[in-house]
Amino acid sequence: MIIFDNAADMRAWCREQHRAGKTIGFVPTMGALHEGHLSLMRAAAGGNDLAVASIFVNPTQFAPHEDFNKYPRTFDQDVAMCASAGVVAVYAPTARTMYAEDYSTFVTVGGVSEGLCGGSRPHFFRGVAAVVTKLFNAVEADHAYFGQKDAQQCAVIKRMVRDLDMAVQIVEMPIVREADGLAMSSRNRYLNAEERARALCLSRSLFAALDLMERGERDAETVKSAVREGMREVKIDYVELVDAETMRPVERVERPVLLAVAALLESARLIDNIKFNPAGHGGSQQ
Amino acid sequence: MIIFDNAADMRAWCREQHRAGKTIGFVPTMGALHEGHLSLMRAAAGGNDLAVASIFVNPTQFAPHEDFNKYPRTFDQDVAMCASAGVVAVYAPTARTMYAEDYSTFVTVGGVSEGLCGGSRPHFFRGVAAVVTKLFNAVEADHAYFGQKDAQQCAVIKRMVRDLDMAVQIVEMPIVREADGLAMSSRNRYLNAEERARALCLSRSLFAALDLMERGERDAETVKSAVREGMREVKIDYVELVDAETMRPVERVERPVLLAVAALLESARLIDNIKFNPAGHGGSQQ
Repeated sequence: MIIFDNAADMRAWCREQHRAGKTIGFVPTMGALHEGHLSLMRAAAGGNDLAVASIFVNPTQFAPHEDFNKYPRTFDQDVAMCASAGVVAVYAPTARTMYAEDYSTFVTVGGVSEGLCGGSRPHFFRGVAAVVTKLFNAVEADHAYFGQKDAQQCAVIKRMVRDLDMAVQIVEMPIVREADGLAMSSRNRYLNAEERARALCLSRSLFAALDLMERGERDAETVKSAVREGMREVKIDYVELVDAETMRPVERVERPVLLAVAALLESARLIDNIKFNPAGHGGSQQ
Repeated sequence: MIIFDNAADMRAWCREQHRAGKTIGFVPTMGALHEGHLSLMRAAAGGNDLAVASIFVNPTQFAPHEDFNKYPRTFDQDVAMCASAGVVAVYAPTARTMYAEDYSTFVTVGGVSEGLCGGSRPHFFRGVAAVVTKLFNAVEADHAYFGQKDAQQCAVIKRMVRDLDMAVQIVEMPIVREADGLAMSSRNRYLNAEERARALCLSRSLFAALDLMERGERDAETVKSAVREGMREVKIDYVELVDAETMRPVERVERPVLLAVAALLESARLIDNIKFNPAGHGGSQQ
C-alpha cells in the first residue's frame, strides 16, 4: 500500500497514473472502516483502473460538544481493510497539514444543506464541503463514491460538484446493513448491547413506512407519524420526508423522496434513511 | 483562436494539452481588455507552453445597484487582443451555463476578504471566490495570473488556493499605468474628461505617500492623512494601510504593507494601491 500524507505528493501520483492512461476511483472516509466503506472501495476498484481511499477525521465538521476526540481511530486495521477491498493508495493527511493556523476558507452549499442534519448540526456541511473539496483537489479522481447512509451529504456534494464545475463524477451507493437491518456506521461501536437492540427501531420503522408507501400511502404526515410511533424507544432528533433531490420537505409523495431519521441514544447519534420512488407503485385504490 | 463555451470541453482540451506534456498559463478576465490584461497574458504565454484566457462578466460579484448591466462588453475586440498577446484558447461561458437556476454554492474566504473592498462590497468576494473556483476547475492551468490592481482579490485567491489545496500556482503581476499614472481599469471608460483629470489624484497621492515611507515615515495615520489630503477632489470610499498578506490594518509600517484606496467618482468607482516593504529602507533618523 502506498500512503501519502500531503496533497502535493498525492496529486503528483494521480497525475502520473492519468498520464499512463489509468482511471482513478476515490473513496473519502474518516476511517473506522466497516462493510459499508468496503462496498464503496470494491465499487471504486471495479469501476476504475485504480482505487484510492482517504482516511482523515475532519475536525471542522464536528461541533465542540461532538465526538471528534473519541471518534474511533483504527488506522493500521483500516489500511489492511482498504487493501483487502482493492485500494492501492491511501491519502492520510494530518490535521496540521490540512488546516493552517490561519485557515479561513469555507464552501457553503445552500438549499440542500438546510434541514435534516443541517438543522441539528449547523456547521456540519460547510466543514464537509470544504474538506471534500480539498480531498478532490488532492486525489484527482474520475469517480468518487459515497454511501446513501449519508444521503443529505451525497446531495450536498452532488450539488457542489455541479455548481463549481468539479471534474469528478459522484457515484452514490446503497446503504449496507447488518443482518438484522441496522445501517452500518462507525458510530455503532459506541453502542452497548441494550442500545444496540433499541437502535433497530430506526430501520424497522423505515421499512414499515416503505411498506406503507408501496401499498399506496402518499400523505407525508401519515408516513412520518408511523415512523415516529415506531421510534418511541429512542429520543428522536428528526423524522423527515423530503424531495430526494432538493432535500425540501414534501406534503405528498409524488416524486422520488427520501425518508430520513436521526435519533439520539445515550452513547451515539444515529441516522438512517430509505428512498422511495412512487413511479411504478400503484395507489391504495388499485 | 479556439473558443470554448462550457467547462467540460474546456477541461478536455486542457487535459489533452497536459497529456502532450504542455504547461498552461491562465488569465481570468471580465473582458473589456486593456494593457493591464495584456501584460498578464504575455506573462502567461512567456511562462508556459500555452496561454488561455477567460472572458466572463460574472453576475454574482455585482450587487443589484452596481454596474453589471453597463459593464463594457467588447468580445470580438477582446478576442483579437488575446490573440495579439499570445493566447491560443479563450473560455467564454454564458451566465446560463455557469449558473443553474438553483445554483447555491459559495466559497467564503475569511480574514483577508474583510475590510477594504470587502467592506464596501460585502457580497463581492464570495462571488469572486466561487467564480474563480469554477474557472480553475474548467481551465486546469499550471499558473494563473492576476494583477496587483486588485490586490485584495489576489490575497483572497492566494488564500483560497492554499486553504483548498488547489493545484494551480498564483502569479501576481504589477499594476500597469497610463503615462500620467492612472492605473489601467476597464472602468476608466466610464469617465468623462473632467473626471479623468480628477482621477489622477489617486495615483498621485499614493506615490507621494510611497515617497513619505521611503523617506522613513512609519506612522500609518500620518501616511493615510497625507493620502486623504491628496484625494480631496474626489469622494473617498476608503484609504487603508494594511498588512500585505493578511489585509489587516496596521498602525506602524513594520512589515510589507499595502496602501489601498477607493474613490467614488460620478461615473465610476475606482481603486488603486501601492505596496511598500520597509526592509531595505532606512528610517527618518538615518
